[in-house]
Amino acid sequence: MRRLTDAEIEKSIGSLIGWKLDGKFVVKKYRFKEFLKGIEFVNEIAQLSENQNHHPFIAIDYKLVTLKLTSWHAGGLTDLDVALAKKYDEIYEKYKI
Amino acid sequence: MRRLTDAEIEKSIGSLIGWKLDGKFVVKKYRFKEFLKGIEFVNEIAQLSENQNHHPFIAIDYKLVTLKLTSWHAGGLTDLDVALAKKYDEIYEKYKI
Repeated sequence: MRRLTDAEIEKSIGSLIGWKLDGKFVVKKYRFKEFLKGIEFVNEIAQLSENQNHHPFIAIDYKLVTLKLTSWHAGGLTDLDVALAKKYDEIYEKYKI
Repeated sequence: MRRLTDAEIEKSIGSLIGWKLDGKFVVKKYRFKEFLKGIEFVNEIAQLSENQNHHPFIAIDYKLVTLKLTSWHAGGLTDLDVALAKKYDEIYEKYKI
């Protein structure tokens, strides 16, 4: 999968809610009402990551979970990162309450 | 629980393997052979953290899991942090292979 151009990245990020560009990464912070809800979310993200063989950086700071995505092989962001960012947002809907 | 003195911290950290002092925190990086083994480890750490109401900062960078401990209420490290660091090392023994 090829690396997106700056124009493509700008357009793709613009279609995502809460995701921010950080160098070669896109980053989002997800907030949970309970610590263990955040952990359940991380488990589902982890299973998906393993199935896709595409692992985001995950940080758990009590009820705040940060996900950070890039495509190492492409040297930057690809359509897969954009698709996964959307998928993570869908998964979050199940655990945010 | 009271904050440990610098001398007490030095002695306590000296008794731990792989833990490093980082300002008001102690930090350790745990390496796993499989990504999902690291996730299982994180789950057990998370359950323990919730039971103890003492949550370390957790970072998952593929097969490398970083744990970072401090006691916010005490403004630094306490005996509980040292005890939990040892406990985390024991838990790691189950998942490292």
